[in-house]
Amino acid sequence: MMMAYAGARNKRIVELCHQHGINAVGLSGLDGKMIQGVRNKGIRVYQDGKLKILRDYSGKPEVINEGLLDLLLSHGYVPVLTVPIMDEQNFAINTENDDVVRVLQKTLRADTVINLIEAPGFLENKDDEGSLIRRIAVGELDAREQQVDGRMKRKMLAVRKLFEHGASKVIIADGRTGHPVKDALSGKGTVIE
Amino acid sequence: MMMAYAGARNKRIVELCHQHGINAVGLSGLDGKMIQGVRNKGIRVYQDGKLKILRDYSGKPEVINEGLLDLLLSHGYVPVLTVPIMDEQNFAINTENDDVVRVLQKTLRADTVINLIEAPGFLENKDDEGSLIRRIAVGELDAREQQVDGRMKRKMLAVRKLFEHGASKVIIADGRTGHPVKDALSGKGTVIE
Repeated sequence: MMMAYAGARNKRIVELCHQHGINAVGLSGLDGKMIQGVRNKGIRVYQDGKLKILRDYSGKPEVINEGLLDLLLSHGYVPVLTVPIMDEQNFAINTENDDVVRVLQKTLRADTVINLIEAPGFLENKDDEGSLIRRIAVGELDAREQQVDGRMKRKMLAVRKLFEHGASKVIIADGRTGHPVKDALSGKGTVIE
Repeated sequence: MMMAYAGARNKRIVELCHQHGINAVGLSGLDGKMIQGVRNKGIRVYQDGKLKILRDYSGKPEVINEGLLDLLLSHGYVPVLTVPIMDEQNFAINTENDDVVRVLQKTLRADTVINLIEAPGFLENKDDEGSLIRRIAVGELDAREQQVDGRMKRKMLAVRKLFEHGASKVIIADGRTGHPVKDALSGKGTVIE
């Protein structure tokens, strides 16, 4: 699954970038150890009266190879990053994209972060795409986080952390449109600042 | 299929490299247009009395992005390249690995090329892994090419072209061993010079 992202999905985005004049380079977290992390310790379960540790190949990102990222950026390449990432034993592990974005934002001291999702933005009512909230103040984030659950709750928590690490604007916008980044930068979606 | 190489196969090699202290970066030919080529024109077929052109997404590599390759090499990264490559319209196309090796050798002016296959090397009798030919002189290549067919014939033709472009040694060796590159450099397999 995570290799499918590194193959089909990532390379398709790179191909589309070049078709639109963007000199993209697709990299997984493994390549040049671009994204290093720590593998989850596993969970303890009792099975047939015995304690077992169930451990999968997942974990949390911690460090970006800033040297490689700067090398590419300063030579006009646009890195397109994807899971998997590298664990402390040099094994591939899966991780949450929102966590990678957080570590990237901190490393690059990014001012603005665009978060594309499969919805027009943060919705007042998750079943009504017309209920888009266009502006959220940073001070409101805590309350908005309480309002939602599941993946969106995790995303709002991740967004809150971006501001703790110095972001001044986060835009949650629709990734399904013809020009999602241009739309986001022109103020469509939910602008949080 | 070609995206599976860019994902699962390439990233697995990158992961193994890092586990052995090699700072690998896996790139497809799409990334930074590392390998650019020309798409095949297609073949003409008559179907129900009408002429049709059947065209797939395959082609021939022509140019390496030497700047990106040098940038990575000069900063201590080991590029691990894979199909797909980029055609002249910025679409992903598949191609023969042997053709990519030829363009790479020419670009890098590589002295030695190691070609790992699923056999001990060039075999006198393709069904007998014990019939390894250990040394082939460049002058013999033409005759050896006549001796085989299918994929091996194409490979021997590709090897002959490497010498035309300045290679001084080509080693065809077994990719299935524990240390295929070390084995090849120590003289196992078929050494052509």
